[in-house]
Amino acid sequence: MKILVYSGALSPKHRQQINDTAAEMKVEVMYIDSVEEITEAHLDAEVVYGFGFNILSAEKLINSRKLKWLSVTSAGVDFLLKPGLFANEDLIITNSAGAYGVSIAEHIIAVSLMMMRKLTYHYTESVNGKWAESVIQRSLKDSRITVWGTGDIGCSFARRVKAFEPASITGVCRSGICSETVYDRVVSSAEIDGILPDTDLLVMSLPGTAETDGILSKQRLSMLPKGAYIVNVGRGTAIDEDALADCLDEGKLEGAALDVFRNEPLPKDSRLWKTKNLLITPHVAGNLTLQYTVDKNVEMFCENLRAYTKGQPLKHVVDKKAGY
Amino acid sequence: MKILVYSGALSPKHRQQINDTAAEMKVEVMYIDSVEEITEAHLDAEVVYGFGFNILSAEKLINSRKLKWLSVTSAGVDFLLKPGLFANEDLIITNSAGAYGVSIAEHIIAVSLMMMRKLTYHYTESVNGKWAESVIQRSLKDSRITVWGTGDIGCSFARRVKAFEPASITGVCRSGICSETVYDRVVSSAEIDGILPDTDLLVMSLPGTAETDGILSKQRLSMLPKGAYIVNVGRGTAIDEDALADCLDEGKLEGAALDVFRNEPLPKDSRLWKTKNLLITPHVAGNLTLQYTVDKNVEMFCENLRAYTKGQPLKHVVDKKAGY
Repeated sequence: MKILVYSGALSPKHRQQINDTAAEMKVEVMYIDSVEEITEAHLDAEVVYGFGFNILSAEKLINSRKLKWLSVTSAGVDFLLKPGLFANEDLIITNSAGAYGVSIAEHIIAVSLMMMRKLTYHYTESVNGKWAESVIQRSLKDSRITVWGTGDIGCSFARRVKAFEPASITGVCRSGICSETVYDRVVSSAEIDGILPDTDLLVMSLPGTAETDGILSKQRLSMLPKGAYIVNVGRGTAIDEDALADCLDEGKLEGAALDVFRNEPLPKDSRLWKTKNLLITPHVAGNLTLQYTVDKNVEMFCENLRAYTKGQPLKHVVDKKAGY
Repeated sequence: MKILVYSGALSPKHRQQINDTAAEMKVEVMYIDSVEEITEAHLDAEVVYGFGFNILSAEKLINSRKLKWLSVTSAGVDFLLKPGLFANEDLIITNSAGAYGVSIAEHIIAVSLMMMRKLTYHYTESVNGKWAESVIQRSLKDSRITVWGTGDIGCSFARRVKAFEPASITGVCRSGICSETVYDRVVSSAEIDGILPDTDLLVMSLPGTAETDGILSKQRLSMLPKGAYIVNVGRGTAIDEDALADCLDEGKLEGAALDVFRNEPLPKDSRLWKTKNLLITPHVAGNLTLQYTVDKNVEMFCENLRAYTKGQPLKHVVDKKAGY
């Protein structure tokens, strides 16, 4: 059996780890660094491991009927689920949900505090050599926090933010059931309208599916209290971006931090660049430049590779119908 | 008995709370909003509660022999301890240590993550309408954290940062003894040289005393590993600022965030404004613009006022010799 690894962020240490696992399982590994390198030999691969967007641009791989298992380094896989995209209709896709919680949770805490403590204002003043005036600060302490999407990311955030003594942490997910015990309560997405009016900080970590498209609608945005903050680290499609920009520009919300957008990179002419109290980051919350994230990613792939060669069930298999 | 309250950040709610406590204890309360308002009648006050720097500019109060207890809203009191400053040599000074832990701990986490996750870079790029390139990120997870100064501020930070799964949290204080259990170990300040080489993030929350002046010297700065970060929220005097700027400009440290400086406001011509990878905030980590901090401050004063009128021991009494 042959596997093809689209290396990208992998260091020599990670290649070694994959080589060792492959040797142990008697599997041949091939590496490529770009689409252009793909040859006929690579198309013998039964397994491909790499960054999803790279795979998407590798037409030959997509058309390969020999490909049985695609392991992608990202957590979100929405862009790989178009029916008929892969020649092999029974292709198993696994994602790397579970590798990003640490990094993205740190991002959420960082941008929440930056907004609440007006740190972009202080940073801007300091860059201009100015000892700034005091401005009103807010705190995570005693805040009512709602975490919409209680997967690895939402729960990693909730466990961290608990230490800041918030008034409450409410988890919201499709089923309304979550085994993580850090939440004060967990409700189903159908109940969100009852939760939004009592939310000071809304954290969104939802996958990009038909069901989540536009789920934070103009109407739902209007249910949040005037002083509320929003952080989105899931998929940009979940929010009506234009309605959000209106709320921010009109001062109906205190601030928002978006790491994901309906169109990425965010187009140059997007009004979001100039929206008031909107903190934009270029989809870096779960960036593979953080060593821990890559370590965890490779570790998860190697564990799945062992299971695959033994004919055991894989972890993190994507439910193509649900979309995540 | 009469008390004088220099109101500043107090809301009507806080005045009411002080009025209620005073009525309960049969004490007369007078309020002033500025030094210019002080009349002979105010000099009958046995107790003064207010922002220390305001008191410092109120010569008449300082010279009043009737003043027995000064309760200041700040945690640091170094500027009030010059021998002979107050006419009453037996003046009791209490500070508000304990009111700032929540706010300053949030500040420390925020600036640490801003540095580690390169968020000032991303913010600057986004303000210029640019979808930035990825850059190397670091994480609180697996970091070796040293907290120098294990008072309310240091411990409030340590309890929060624990949730981020650092490799270790080492507390460092004068005595080497601290009742807080969140630390992996607590050592005395005399042992700091053995700790610095194993520190990825050094958090300094030391009071401004003769003993702490220049305690993070050029020599000690050179003991930190190349990739280390420093956050100072105690007093600016603790660090050799010029040596720190050299380390940062030469890339010997990864970053520093200073909220306090030897001279405040930081002089316009200070080289620190232009120092590489230095995040400057204008002494706002424990700002009284955060409602919780004021609530706690007033609550602590009222509790002490009850004790004072009953002749019971006060809390947070400053040890004038130790300097905090």
